[in-house]
Amino acid sequence: MNNLLQELAVVLEQRKQSADSETSYVASLHQKGLNKILEKVGEEATETILAAKDLESGGSRQALVGEVADLWFHSMVMLSHLNISIDEIGECLADRAGISGLEEKAARGQ
Amino acid sequence: MNNLLQELAVVLEQRKQSADSETSYVASLHQKGLNKILEKVGEEATETILAAKDLESGGSRQALVGEVADLWFHSMVMLSHLNISIDEIGECLADRAGISGLEEKAARGQ
Amino acid sequence: MNNLLQELAVVLEQRKQSADSETSYVASLHQKGLNKILEKVGEEATETILAAKDLESGGSRQALVGEVADLWFHSMVMLSHLNISIDEIGECLADRAGISGLEEKAARGQ
Amino acid sequence: MNNLLQELAVVLEQRKQSADSETSYVASLHQKGLNKILEKVGEEATETILAAKDLESGGSRQALVGEVADLWFHSMVMLSHLNISIDEIGECLADRAGISGLEEKAARGQ
Repeated sequence: MNNLLQELAVVLEQRKQSADSETSYVASLHQKGLNKILEKVGEEATETILAAKDLESGGSRQALVGEVADLWFHSMVMLSHLNISIDEIGECLADRAGISGLEEKAARGQ
Repeated sequence: MNNLLQELAVVLEQRKQSADSETSYVASLHQKGLNKILEKVGEEATETILAAKDLESGGSRQALVGEVADLWFHSMVMLSHLNISIDEIGECLADRAGISGLEEKAARGQ
Repeated sequence: MNNLLQELAVVLEQRKQSADSETSYVASLHQKGLNKILEKVGEEATETILAAKDLESGGSRQALVGEVADLWFHSMVMLSHLNISIDEIGECLADRAGISGLEEKAARGQ
Repeated sequence: MNNLLQELAVVLEQRKQSADSETSYVASLHQKGLNKILEKVGEEATETILAAKDLESGGSRQALVGEVADLWFHSMVMLSHLNISIDEIGECLADRAGISGLEEKAARGQ
């Protein structure tokens, strides 16, 4: 995982600026607006739940991996749409889990 | 963000092993089982959508940050419950976004 | 079903007016506001989905009946909160399903 | 509303039997299976929530009516797929709301 979400956030920001909503899926989501993005978040949450239940009954592990990736991806498009950085989510997660921000900064060499 | 999700995954794994479901929220979720965890994923997705709409109408930015953190947190508890590593999600996200896995490994010094 | 939803709508309207949010669950929902009611709609939709998947794997039929009843109940509280009559939903459903409104009115003796 | 849901249930049952999934939307849903139907239930729940928030901010009343109709419609397709009668939902709703089944039967002239 490491830097991947940071890298993904940069890529999403570039695509948000892109005027070309015909070739970029992300640009087309921004153009359609917040409701469309939130519909996708809701849709991927439902598909995550269905895939988890299917895995419980012997279904595909890879299907669930794909749905969770889609859920996180569309959450990040939403954050980008609303100009919220994923570092803000990270700080909040660290607080809730009682993980020291200091350790995290140390790991980044800062 | 960087190593934070990795660290969080380690912490979640430790709490999953914890026998003490009275003091650990995460242990209590595992004990209640997959349906309870999936109900939380669905609940946090709905609360994320509501907080995003409220932010659009001038509401609190911090409320949305908290809901997204909760959504990701409970997604990770679900992955831990089903023995799926977040690296699998990361690989899938990298594939979809066309981000080179090599760059990512390089960034980790591997 | 017949007149039941109409009767339920009347009951929900009476409880909405009730000042006593301590004894009436419906009054307490209205007092907490639209977000709380919508959280319940989202929650019951998730529980409906989980119960349907469980039924598919040999689980309880009655559990699903209860979740669908809860989903419709909270949808009706939402309609009441926003001053929308269930007749408006009925007309829309009739249109979509191509059921003649005339037949329906005939059945009501109007 | 009255007999409308009963009528709709009959229509849905006929379309379920229809072999023609090309011309009937309902037949195509049954052919795609339970997951597809549940995805629609989740999707319409999300769209109901978004339309209710939009109405709160001065948006369209008719948009919300359409989403609730879609949510109920797809719930009924799900019940039909799983061979559950809407009368079972009605009995459960009557129990929860404390509405006498006797009154309801009286209203039907039975």
